[in-house]
Amino acid sequence: MGSKIITFGEVIMRLSPPGHRTMKQSHEMEFFFGGTELNVASSLAVMGCEVKHISCVSDDFVGEAAIASMKSFGIDTSLIKKTEHPLGLYFLEVGSSIRSSRIAYNRLNGSFANISPDQVDWKKGLEGCGYFHWTGISPGISEGAYETLKQGLQTAQEMGIQITTDPAYRSNLWKYGKKGNEVLKELVSYSTIFIGGVNEINEILGTVFSLDKEGFIEACKELKQQIPSIHKIFDKIRIGVTASSQQTQGRALVDGDYFETELLEVTPVVDRIGTGDAFAAGLIYGLLNYDDEMALKFANAACAVKHTILGDINQCSAEDILEVVNGNSGGRIKR
Amino acid sequence: MGSKIITFGEVIMRLSPPGHRTMKQSHEMEFFFGGTELNVASSLAVMGCEVKHISCVSDDFVGEAAIASMKSFGIDTSLIKKTEHPLGLYFLEVGSSIRSSRIAYNRLNGSFANISPDQVDWKKGLEGCGYFHWTGISPGISEGAYETLKQGLQTAQEMGIQITTDPAYRSNLWKYGKKGNEVLKELVSYSTIFIGGVNEINEILGTVFSLDKEGFIEACKELKQQIPSIHKIFDKIRIGVTASSQQTQGRALVDGDYFETELLEVTPVVDRIGTGDAFAAGLIYGLLNYDDEMALKFANAACAVKHTILGDINQCSAEDILEVVNGNSGGRIKR
Amino acid sequence: MGSKIITFGEVIMRLSPPGHRTMKQSHEMEFFFGGTELNVASSLAVMGCEVKHISCVSDDFVGEAAIASMKSFGIDTSLIKKTEHPLGLYFLEVGSSIRSSRIAYNRLNGSFANISPDQVDWKKGLEGCGYFHWTGISPGISEGAYETLKQGLQTAQEMGIQITTDPAYRSNLWKYGKKGNEVLKELVSYSTIFIGGVNEINEILGTVFSLDKEGFIEACKELKQQIPSIHKIFDKIRIGVTASSQQTQGRALVDGDYFETELLEVTPVVDRIGTGDAFAAGLIYGLLNYDDEMALKFANAACAVKHTILGDINQCSAEDILEVVNGNSGGRIKR
Amino acid sequence: MGSKIITFGEVIMRLSPPGHRTMKQSHEMEFFFGGTELNVASSLAVMGCEVKHISCVSDDFVGEAAIASMKSFGIDTSLIKKTEHPLGLYFLEVGSSIRSSRIAYNRLNGSFANISPDQVDWKKGLEGCGYFHWTGISPGISEGAYETLKQGLQTAQEMGIQITTDPAYRSNLWKYGKKGNEVLKELVSYSTIFIGGVNEINEILGTVFSLDKEGFIEACKELKQQIPSIHKIFDKIRIGVTASSQQTQGRALVDGDYFETELLEVTPVVDRIGTGDAFAAGLIYGLLNYDDEMALKFANAACAVKHTILGDINQCSAEDILEVVNGNSGGRIKR
Amino acid sequence: MGSKIITFGEVIMRLSPPGHRTMKQSHEMEFFFGGTELNVASSLAVMGCEVKHISCVSDDFVGEAAIASMKSFGIDTSLIKKTEHPLGLYFLEVGSSIRSSRIAYNRLNGSFANISPDQVDWKKGLEGCGYFHWTGISPGISEGAYETLKQGLQTAQEMGIQITTDPAYRSNLWKYGKKGNEVLKELVSYSTIFIGGVNEINEILGTVFSLDKEGFIEACKELKQQIPSIHKIFDKIRIGVTASSQQTQGRALVDGDYFETELLEVTPVVDRIGTGDAFAAGLIYGLLNYDDEMALKFANAACAVKHTILGDINQCSAEDILEVVNGNSGGRIKR
Amino acid sequence: MGSKIITFGEVIMRLSPPGHRTMKQSHEMEFFFGGTELNVASSLAVMGCEVKHISCVSDDFVGEAAIASMKSFGIDTSLIKKTEHPLGLYFLEVGSSIRSSRIAYNRLNGSFANISPDQVDWKKGLEGCGYFHWTGISPGISEGAYETLKQGLQTAQEMGIQITTDPAYRSNLWKYGKKGNEVLKELVSYSTIFIGGVNEINEILGTVFSLDKEGFIEACKELKQQIPSIHKIFDKIRIGVTASSQQTQGRALVDGDYFETELLEVTPVVDRIGTGDAFAAGLIYGLLNYDDEMALKFANAACAVKHTILGDINQCSAEDILEVVNGNSGGRIKR
Repeated sequence: MGSKIITFGEVIMRLSPPGHRTMKQSHEMEFFFGGTELNVASSLAVMGCEVKHISCVSDDFVGEAAIASMKSFGIDTSLIKKTEHPLGLYFLEVGSSIRSSRIAYNRLNGSFANISPDQVDWKKGLEGCGYFHWTGISPGISEGAYETLKQGLQTAQEMGIQITTDPAYRSNLWKYGKKGNEVLKELVSYSTIFIGGVNEINEILGTVFSLDKEGFIEACKELKQQIPSIHKIFDKIRIGVTASSQQTQGRALVDGDYFETELLEVTPVVDRIGTGDAFAAGLIYGLLNYDDEMALKFANAACAVKHTILGDINQCSAEDILEVVNGNSGGRIKR
Repeated sequence: MGSKIITFGEVIMRLSPPGHRTMKQSHEMEFFFGGTELNVASSLAVMGCEVKHISCVSDDFVGEAAIASMKSFGIDTSLIKKTEHPLGLYFLEVGSSIRSSRIAYNRLNGSFANISPDQVDWKKGLEGCGYFHWTGISPGISEGAYETLKQGLQTAQEMGIQITTDPAYRSNLWKYGKKGNEVLKELVSYSTIFIGGVNEINEILGTVFSLDKEGFIEACKELKQQIPSIHKIFDKIRIGVTASSQQTQGRALVDGDYFETELLEVTPVVDRIGTGDAFAAGLIYGLLNYDDEMALKFANAACAVKHTILGDINQCSAEDILEVVNGNSGGRIKR
Repeated sequence: MGSKIITFGEVIMRLSPPGHRTMKQSHEMEFFFGGTELNVASSLAVMGCEVKHISCVSDDFVGEAAIASMKSFGIDTSLIKKTEHPLGLYFLEVGSSIRSSRIAYNRLNGSFANISPDQVDWKKGLEGCGYFHWTGISPGISEGAYETLKQGLQTAQEMGIQITTDPAYRSNLWKYGKKGNEVLKELVSYSTIFIGGVNEINEILGTVFSLDKEGFIEACKELKQQIPSIHKIFDKIRIGVTASSQQTQGRALVDGDYFETELLEVTPVVDRIGTGDAFAAGLIYGLLNYDDEMALKFANAACAVKHTILGDINQCSAEDILEVVNGNSGGRIKR
Repeated sequence: MGSKIITFGEVIMRLSPPGHRTMKQSHEMEFFFGGTELNVASSLAVMGCEVKHISCVSDDFVGEAAIASMKSFGIDTSLIKKTEHPLGLYFLEVGSSIRSSRIAYNRLNGSFANISPDQVDWKKGLEGCGYFHWTGISPGISEGAYETLKQGLQTAQEMGIQITTDPAYRSNLWKYGKKGNEVLKELVSYSTIFIGGVNEINEILGTVFSLDKEGFIEACKELKQQIPSIHKIFDKIRIGVTASSQQTQGRALVDGDYFETELLEVTPVVDRIGTGDAFAAGLIYGLLNYDDEMALKFANAACAVKHTILGDINQCSAEDILEVVNGNSGGRIKR
Repeated sequence: MGSKIITFGEVIMRLSPPGHRTMKQSHEMEFFFGGTELNVASSLAVMGCEVKHISCVSDDFVGEAAIASMKSFGIDTSLIKKTEHPLGLYFLEVGSSIRSSRIAYNRLNGSFANISPDQVDWKKGLEGCGYFHWTGISPGISEGAYETLKQGLQTAQEMGIQITTDPAYRSNLWKYGKKGNEVLKELVSYSTIFIGGVNEINEILGTVFSLDKEGFIEACKELKQQIPSIHKIFDKIRIGVTASSQQTQGRALVDGDYFETELLEVTPVVDRIGTGDAFAAGLIYGLLNYDDEMALKFANAACAVKHTILGDINQCSAEDILEVVNGNSGGRIKR
Repeated sequence: MGSKIITFGEVIMRLSPPGHRTMKQSHEMEFFFGGTELNVASSLAVMGCEVKHISCVSDDFVGEAAIASMKSFGIDTSLIKKTEHPLGLYFLEVGSSIRSSRIAYNRLNGSFANISPDQVDWKKGLEGCGYFHWTGISPGISEGAYETLKQGLQTAQEMGIQITTDPAYRSNLWKYGKKGNEVLKELVSYSTIFIGGVNEINEILGTVFSLDKEGFIEACKELKQQIPSIHKIFDKIRIGVTASSQQTQGRALVDGDYFETELLEVTPVVDRIGTGDAFAAGLIYGLLNYDDEMALKFANAACAVKHTILGDINQCSAEDILEVVNGNSGGRIKR
C-alpha cells in the first residue's frame, strides 16, 4: 500500500472583488483555482505528499491555466480530462465583521458536471495509492459526477485503499433529481474514515442527535453500527464569531475512545473558504505521520492557520502547522 | 403624500490612498462619489426606495462620472445642474487602530458652493414627495447653498412634506460670514423629525445639557418646546474605541416616550465615513416601513453594518440590515 | 413614432487579464458588462438617446451589478428579468501585434439562454419606440432566445417600428439544433434596415457574391429583392492589419444609390471588442439626426474611435465622434 | 553669477484614471505632482542642476506630499509657503490614437491662485542665481500670481539675472479681469531669452506672421525690435500626428542667425503632458553647458524623449538625452 | 554641540507581496527603502530634525531611487557613496494572526557590505552634530562595515558627540568571522546612551539576568559598571500577542532611577517592521525636546503608532505621536 | 536517443515597475522567474516537450516560488538544488520608443553563482535525453558555474547527445578572472548545433568577418573548420528599430547550404527580454519536428511572437507559432 493520495472532484475558479469591495464597487476581480477536494490535494502536495487529482476541465485557455495552477503545486494532472464545457466558477463577495460573505455559483453545467464514468480509468488512477479522498459536493453536482465517483469508490474498496470522506451536505446542490441524504448514505458506506460530526450524521442517517459531546459520541456509535467499514471519525467544530473572527476545535471517536483538541482562535480572518479542506488535508497528513490524537491536533491547527491564508488552498508547510500545534502565536518574524 | 424621498446637498468626490498608505507613500488613489445627503439618498435607493437628489455638479467629465455613479443606484438625477465650477472633493488618509484618519477638503469654491436659489425649481422637485432630507453641512458651505436650502424648506413646509434633519455642525465650515448655530436653529425650525442628540441640541439652542440619558431626555423636551414642529427625535451614539473598532447605539424620544437599542460592536472597521448617513437612511426607511422602535433598531443596524463597507455609501439591502437586527454576527457564508 | 430605441439581447460579463497578460500569468482580471445589443444600447444612451434594454440576468449579486452598470448609462432596465441561472460570461486574452486575441465562452446555459417568450411583455416594451435593434447572436444562443426574439419582431412589425438588424453569424453558436442561416433569413425578413455586407448576405441567402464594390451592390440588390421590407443597407469594413492596428470603412446602398466613406486608421488598437456595435449605434444615431450619407460617416467614425476605448462599450459622446468625422487626429489635448 | 536656477509657478496635482480608461470606467486614479514651471525645475534637478522652486501649497497632508515629491528630486523647497487654500489639481483622461486626451481643471481658487507679493522674499530667493524661469500660465491664474511674478521679474532684472520665458498663452485662464496678451507683453519685456514661436509672438504683439520659416524669422525680428532685452529666441514645433504619435523639431533665431534641428518622431506616445517643459529645461541645461545650436538639439531631444515618460516631469538624465541627440533609437537594452 | 543627528547603516530595499499573499500567490511586490538606522533617520526627519545618513548604495537606477526616497524625507544624502555592488534587499511575506511573517535576506554581498573605512570622511560627516546613532546590525554584516563604524565611533567620541546604541543582535548575521557579542561589547563601549534591555545586556556581557523589573535594574547596573560611558539606558518591551496584535511598553534606568510607561496595545497591526527603530527615533527626539521620562513615553508611543504604518519607516509627525501619548485612541477623524 | 531536453543555467527573478514607470515613480514591481536557459526550457514545455532543468536556487520562500513557477510549466525540477545563497535577480526599467530599457543585475553572488560540479549528478540528469542546451551566460557568472557546465558537456558528449549552444557573450559578466572568448571557444567545441552569427563567431575565434550574408557564410565555414563537431549553424537577426518596434529574421548554414527566412515585423513590442531564447526553443522544437528550413522559419516566428508576450518566457503553443509562420497577422479574434 503506497502513501500516494488520490482526490476526485471539481476544479472550480473563484472570482472575488479585491479588499472588502462589492461587485458593484469593482472593475476587477482576483481569481484562484480551487475546489473542495483539490484544496485537500493541494495542501497535501504543499506538505510534500505525492498526490494525483482526477477531474475534468474546459478545453480552452481557462482550463489550461487551471492545470498550470495544479502543476505548480506538483500535483499529478495526467488524469485530468478536457471537455468542451466551460470550467465551473463562483463569485465571492468577502464580508467583514457583522457583514456575511456571499457566494454566487456557476457550476451546474460546467466541465465537471458533465463528467461521466467512461472518462476515468479508475484502475490506473488508483494504482499504488494508499488514500482516496472524496466529499459530498461531487455527487451533488450531477448524476454523471455521482456515477463516476461511485465507480471510483467501488474500485478503491476492492483494492483495499483507505477511503476518507467529508460528506459536506449543501442544500444549494442536488438539483438533478437524487436526494442528497440517500446518495450520501450509499457512498459513505464505502468509506473507512469519516470526517464529519453530528450535523452530517443526522443528515445522512435521519437521526436527531444533539450537538454536544454526548450527542457526538452517540452519533458516532450509531454511524459505526450502521456503516461498519468506518473505523475512525474525526470532526471539526468551526465557530464563526463574526466574519472576521473564528474559533476552531477538533474532536474524534476512534475505537470507542473520545478525544478533543484545545480551542484555537483566529482574529482577523483573512479567508474562511477551504478551512474545512485544510482540516481534511491536515488529518490525512497526520494519519500518515502521527498517531490519531496528534493527527487531530495537526488537523485542527491546519484548519486554524488556513483562516490566515488568501484563496481556497492552505499554503502552509507541515513545519508551519507544527508551530501552531506548539502554541506559536505568530507574534514573531521568522528571519 | 407619496413615498418618494428628496435629498439636497453637495456631490463630493473622495480620494484616498489604498490600504493604510499615506499620500506620501502612494502613487494612486481610490475614488468614490458621495456627500452626506447623497449617501442617504443612495442607501435608500439600494433599499428600493424612489429617490431624487438635487444638486449642482461640474460641467466636465468629472461631473459626468458623478452623475453616472448616482444613476447606477437608480437615483433620479433630472434636477442635477451642471456649472463651470469644479466638483468639490476631499482627500482621506485612512487611519488604523490608534492612528486617526485625516481629511483635507477642497469644496468651498466648488460647483455646489456656487449654487443659488434660481437654479432649483423646488415646486417641481418636491412634487409627489413624502420626505425631504437635509443636513447642516449644506448651509455651512456657502450663502448660496443656505439660501437655496431655505427656499426648499419653505416650499416643503407649505406642501406638508415630512422634513428630516441631521443638523451635523462642523466647525471647519461656516467660513462665509453667517454663524452656524443661528442658521441651524432657523432651518431646523422647518423640520418635523430631528436626527441628533445632546451635542446638536446644545449647539443649536446654546444649552448645556449633559450627555447621559437624563440629559438627552431633557434636551429633547427643550427642543420640542422651542421648535414645536419637531415631533420625533432619534439619536445615534457612535463610540469610536479605536480607528479599527466601533460601537453604535440608537436612542429616541417620541411623544414623550424614551427608548433605546442594544449596543452593536464592529471590529474591524473597514470605513467609518458615512455611517451617520447610513443611520439617517435606515431611519427614514424604517419610518416608512415599521413602527418607531423598530425604525430605530433598523437605523442602528444600518449604521453598524456600514462600518464594514468601503466608500461613503451603505451598499446593504434592507434584507442585509434585517439580518444584523436579528443578531446574525456575520460568521456564515451566504451561498 | 417616438425616438426611443429598444434593444434585446444577452447581458454578458467579460473577464480579461490586465495588460497583455495571459490567464496563466495573472492573479486578477478586469471585468466589464456588455453584450452585442447592450453595447448598441449603451452607446446610444451615452449619446443622449432614450433607450430600453430587454433581457434576463441572474438573480444574485452578479446580476445586480450588471443592472447597476446599465443604469449608470441611463438605460431603462425596468423590463430586465431575474432568473436562477447564472449570468453568461466570457474570458478574453488580449493579443498584440502579430498575436491574436482569444475568447472562451460560458454562455450557453446562462440566464439569457434560458429566456422564454412568456417572460417578455413586448407590447408594453415596444410602446412609444421608434427603433428596435437586434442581432444574429441572440437566436444562436438557444431556442428560447430565438422564440422570444421572433415574437418581439412580429410585434414590432405590427406596430410599424423600424427594425435594424446586424445578422452577425457566429459559427460557435447554433448548438441547440436549428440552422443559423435558415433562422437568420426568417428573422431578417422582419427588418427594415440591414447592417451587414457581402459575407452576411451570402451566409443568409446561400449566395456567392464577391467582396468587392460590385459584389456588394449586387448582393444588396438580391437581398432587397428577396426581402422587400429592407430599404436600407449599411456595411462596415474592418480590416485588421495586426491585433494592434486597424482600418475601418463604411459603405451603403440606399434606394439604389451606392456611397462609401473614407478609410480611417487606428493605431494602436486599445480594444476591438464591440466596434461593430459602435458602428450600429452610430448608424442609428445618425439616421435619427442626419441624412443617410452623414449617418454612414458618423457610424464609421464611431466604429473607428471605439477601437481606442477599453471595454465592450463606446463611451464617446456624439461630439467626440463628430470630431473624428471632421478629421481631428487626436493629437491635441482638450483643456 | 551663479549657475543656480530659480523657477516660480503653481504646484499642481494631476489625477488620471490608469491605462486608457475614462473616469466613468475607473475606481482609482494615478496621481503626480507637477506644474509647468516645476516640471522645468524637476527636469533640471534630475540633470544635476541646483534648483529652487518658489510657490505656495496647501497646509495639509496633500501639500506635504507635494513638498516631499519636490524634495525627492533634490529641489530646494525652503521658500515654498503653506496656506489654508487647497492645492490646485487637474483631472486627465488619456486619449489614444484618434481619441484626444481631456483635461478638467480645479486650480483657480487653490493655494497658488491665492499667492500675494508679500509672501515671497524675492531678494533672498534670487540670491546667487543665474537663471530665472517663468511661463505665461502663472499670471493667467490670478491677479495675486501676476503681481507676485511681476515683482520677481523686476528684482531679477535689477540683479542682472537671465530671464527665460515660455509665454504659453491659454485661453481657459485669464478669468480674473486682465487681458492675457497685454499682461504677457508687459512681463515678457523683462525677459532675455524667449522660448516660443510665431503663435506666441502673434498673440503678444497682435501681429499675423505666418507659421513657416520665413514667418518665424520675421516674427522674431519684430519681437526683438519691440522688446530689445530679448537676445535669443528658441522655438519648439510639436506636431501631434495622433494622440499616440508625435513629431518634434526645434528652431531658433540668435543674433540674426536662424538654425533648426532635425525632426524627431516618437511612436507610441506614453504621455504628452510636460513635453514643452522638457524642452525648456533641456534648453536651459544646454545654454549652461553647450553652444546655442547644441543647446537647441539637446532641448529638442529632451522634448522628444519626454513623450516616453509617464507623468508631467522628464525623468531622463543628461546622458539619456545625449543618446537621443546621438541618434540612439532606443532599440537596445542597457545592461 | 548642534542638534543635527548622524546615522550610519545599510540602505536596504524591502520587497513584499501585497495583502496577505505569499510569493507563490503573487505576480507583483510592493517595495520600500529602509534599513534599521535609516528608519531612525527618516522618522527624525519627518519630525523636523536635521539628519544626515552615511551609507553606500549601488551605482544604478536602484541606488538612485533609494537616494530619491531619502531626499523625499529631507535627509542630507551628500555623504552617500555609490559602488558597483548591488543594493541589499530582503523579501517579506506578511503574516496574520497565528501565522508568522517570514523574511529572506539578500544583503551580505551588497553595496553596504562592501563599504570600507576609506569611503567615509567621518570628520566632515560629524561636524556640527549632536547625536550619532548606530545599531548592532551594521557590524554584523561585514568586516568592512565593522571597521568603518568603529572609525566613526572613535571620531564621534573624540568630538564629544552623544552616541546612541541599539545593539540589536541578530543570529542570522555575523557570517564573516567575528563573534557578535565580542564586537558589540567593544563598540558599545563608545556609547553614551544604550537602547536595549536584559536580552541585549546578557548577550553582550555574557550574563544571565532575568527578564523582570529586578533583573532589568541589575543588568543595567552591571552594564554601567562595565561600560561607565553609558549614562542612560532605555528599553522597549514589545509583546507580540499574535501577528495582528501587539503590546508595547518602555522602561528605563537613568542615574539609578527606574521608571516605566504604561502598556499600549495595537490591534490590528499593519506592519511590525521598524517599530524598534521608531522607538529609537522617538527617544532621540524626546531627549532633544523633553525630560527623560517624557522622552520614554514619547518613544513608546512612537513605537506603538508605527505598528499602524505600512513600510519600514514611521511617517508620523511629533504632533501625531503626542496625541497617542495623550491617550487619543484613534477613534475620531481629523478633518 | 530520447526526445527529452535538458537545460542548465541560472533561475533568475526579474523585477520591473509596471507600465512605463521608472523605479523612482513606483511603489511596486511585477516579478517573473526566468533565466536564458530556463526560458528555453519553459517555452519547450509549453509546446509539449518533456524538459528537465538543472540549477541551484535559494533555500527560502523565494526559491520555493521559483520552483513552483517551473513546475507550473510542467518542467522536471527534481535536480534543482537548494542552497543558502540568495536567488539571483535583476531590475528592469522598460523603455519605450526612443527611450531604451535599462537593467541592473544582482546575480554574481547568488545561488547559481555558487554552484559547483559536485552538486550535479550529470549521468543521472542526462539519462534518456536527446538534447542538451546551454548558453554563454552560465560560464560567465562564476568559476563554479563554468566547471559544472564543462562537466555536463563532457558527459553529454560521451553519451552522444545533441548539444545546442547559444554563446551569448555579455561584457558585464566574466568578472571572476577567466576570459570570455577563451572559455567560450573551449565550451563551444563540445557542441553540435551552433545558434549564433557573425558577432558570436568573431568574438570566439577572434576573427573579423563582416555582418552581411557573405560574411555570415564565411564565418560559418571558418567555425566548422575550427570546430568540426558543429554541423548546423542557425542565426537570428533582431533589428531593434525603436524600443517599441522590432524586426526579426533567421538565417542558417547547414551542410554548406545557406537559407534564410522572410523578415517579420512586430509593432508595438510588449517585451523584448527572452526573444533570443524563444528563437532557440523554437529551433529545438523545429529540429525535433520539421526539416531544417522549416525549423528556422518556426524559430523566427517564435522569436517574433515572443515580442508580444510579457515576461521572459514565450507562452505560445506550437499552434500559435505556426499561425505566425503561416502569415496570420493577428488582426482576428480567436473565439
